Amino acid sequence: MSNKFRTIWLTEDKYVEVIDQRRLPHNVVNVKLTSYKDAELAIKNMTVRGAPLIGATAAYGIYLAVREMIEKQLDGNFLDEAFEALRNSRPTAINLFWALDRMKKALDLSEDFLQTAWIEAGKIVEEDVETCRMIGVHGLPIIEAISKRKKGEVVNILTHCNAGMLGCIEWGTITSPIYQAHQKGIKVHVWVDETRPRNQGSNLTAYELTRHGIDHSLIVDNTGGHLMQHGMVDMVIVGTDRTTRNGDVANKIGTYLKALAAKDNNIPFYVALPSTTLDMRIRDGLKEIPIEERDQDEVRYFEGKRFSDGEIDRVLICPETTKARNYGFDVTPARLVTALITERGVCEANEEGITNLFPEYK
Amino acid sequence: MSNKFRTIWLTEDKYVEVIDQRRLPHNVVNVKLTSYKDAELAIKNMTVRGAPLIGATAAYGIYLAVREMIEKQLDGNFLDEAFEALRNSRPTAINLFWALDRMKKALDLSEDFLQTAWIEAGKIVEEDVETCRMIGVHGLPIIEAISKRKKGEVVNILTHCNAGMLGCIEWGTITSPIYQAHQKGIKVHVWVDETRPRNQGSNLTAYELTRHGIDHSLIVDNTGGHLMQHGMVDMVIVGTDRTTRNGDVANKIGTYLKALAAKDNNIPFYVALPSTTLDMRIRDGLKEIPIEERDQDEVRYFEGKRFSDGEIDRVLICPETTKARNYGFDVTPARLVTALITERGVCEANEEGITNLFPEYK
Repeated sequence: MSNKFRTIWLTEDKYVEVIDQRRLPHNVVNVKLTSYKDAELAIKNMTVRGAPLIGATAAYGIYLAVREMIEKQLDGNFLDEAFEALRNSRPTAINLFWALDRMKKALDLSEDFLQTAWIEAGKIVEEDVETCRMIGVHGLPIIEAISKRKKGEVVNILTHCNAGMLGCIEWGTITSPIYQAHQKGIKVHVWVDETRPRNQGSNLTAYELTRHGIDHSLIVDNTGGHLMQHGMVDMVIVGTDRTTRNGDVANKIGTYLKALAAKDNNIPFYVALPSTTLDMRIRDGLKEIPIEERDQDEVRYFEGKRFSDGEIDRVLICPETTKARNYGFDVTPARLVTALITERGVCEANEEGITNLFPEYK
Repeated sequence: MSNKFRTIWLTEDKYVEVIDQRRLPHNVVNVKLTSYKDAELAIKNMTVRGAPLIGATAAYGIYLAVREMIEKQLDGNFLDEAFEALRNSRPTAINLFWALDRMKKALDLSEDFLQTAWIEAGKIVEEDVETCRMIGVHGLPIIEAISKRKKGEVVNILTHCNAGMLGCIEWGTITSPIYQAHQKGIKVHVWVDETRPRNQGSNLTAYELTRHGIDHSLIVDNTGGHLMQHGMVDMVIVGTDRTTRNGDVANKIGTYLKALAAKDNNIPFYVALPSTTLDMRIRDGLKEIPIEERDQDEVRYFEGKRFSDGEIDRVLICPETTKARNYGFDVTPARLVTALITERGVCEANEEGITNLFPEYK
């Protein structure tokens, strides 16, 4: 069972190719990465995004650095620079650091750098595919149970941002249970939060749900609370860029507001994550997770396909002189999270829950 | 003390003029209303918006209908049609019905229809100006107290949508205390929620704060929770389209999410309103206030000034086939509201609080 379509792959000449996610949904454009600087830029400018895909791109960035180092007969400083640059490409997603650490460990033990980098990056990608598939296997019974309780009526699922296959390699985290439910014939409908300012919901989640034939409705980020108050949401499921030992969840800005509304209306709020997203070194997400602040023009301008002639353009939505602030993420305290859905099963969002499933983190 | 600039006024030939608020902030264009159908359309298509301004426009719509009836020697059916059409122009804002009822009562007692309609609509407008000024007088001490507690440091105020002068005639409801604080030399900074899908925050609130020289930052609707978690908001203040006897507050979609975040972070959440916005006939806002559902293209498209050439255009932000749902308002339960700020003073958001200030509603 596979979705075939992937977000990162190798070319015949052993370089790396990704989809330029900034151009979805209107254009599907692939971008070839031939150096670690290409990979760094792709992460920085959000050509690729989503914690697992950022990790995979960074891993292949190291492979590209090793290749360049060997081809140009550079010394080890070049590789150190590559690690440093990729490590600084984005601050919040933990998978980035995890993938780089893993590449470093593998290379430290290796004699054949090129072969090792190639194999290790490939493993990171293949493991993510299997991890996401298993998140679906464990998340599916939650959707099935709601469907049964509703006697086969449509299960309404709200999500924020894109923690779909586009944020991963295949399957996605939050979309994996949804796709598997759909394949089993369970009726699902997804409320897609637009996810300002970069619109990953309207651009990416709506795109991949359309591609998979999943019924969905686009809503602005303001709408979820109203829907929950009126019984129009059966469950919320979101991804995460970093989850702490205590179960605090950093995710796209606005996630916290949906978690509050879910709590206020007794609606279960799930977080789907590969264990690579756990940051067991920290406890208090609010105090310890750095929150990226991005360019104010992401808020002041809005990009899309022009009504007048179909060209892609951006429009200014405020007075010329108005400044904006643009925080990329927020932290949802563990007390608002019903459960974490991981590749090893479902657990409570706390240290005990996490270490029961992952005793190696005890 | 006056702001001079108004949102609705009379022309020399005794017709009505309003600002086309759909074209702000990039263009200031006035629209002349010469019939009740013009007024109806201006309310429907949101040329004018904001509960008090909708009421005033409807009142002048009746004046225009009376004038047309007399000039064209039509019978009373024409006036009945005007009342009916204006009553159905938008469902949520209570001021619309209040203004129409008041015009009806005045006309029922009148011998000179034209004179009565003219005077009564004028009174509604002038009373709103004074009401909004008094909301500022009563709200100002709240801002002053925070400023004092912070030893003169900037008071950070978050607002959603536009309950500014642009939603009223002059002063505005939530902006009246802010403008009066600014005039007194108190340092204020406003977090302006963009307010998707129609961007009344980025288009209108940012515009009028700029015009009044008030320091402000535009944020996406997702950001408020994060700011509150990090002590960057001292108070929230919003307007309302209808507030019930129990103190439940209907306001722009997304208000409820901000109220939840304020509660979760012990930040006071105020609602500023003229008493004309109270609907004392109903108690349970969630069950009894009809929530307008608007055209899905307001969500699917985004309007602004083109980056490429400065023309106004709209851009599609989702796949062509993706549907959207577009609820205009939500209801914030009274339990989340710290207090109501009215023209007669500040009260708790419940029947006792309201009827203490407005014993005529007991």
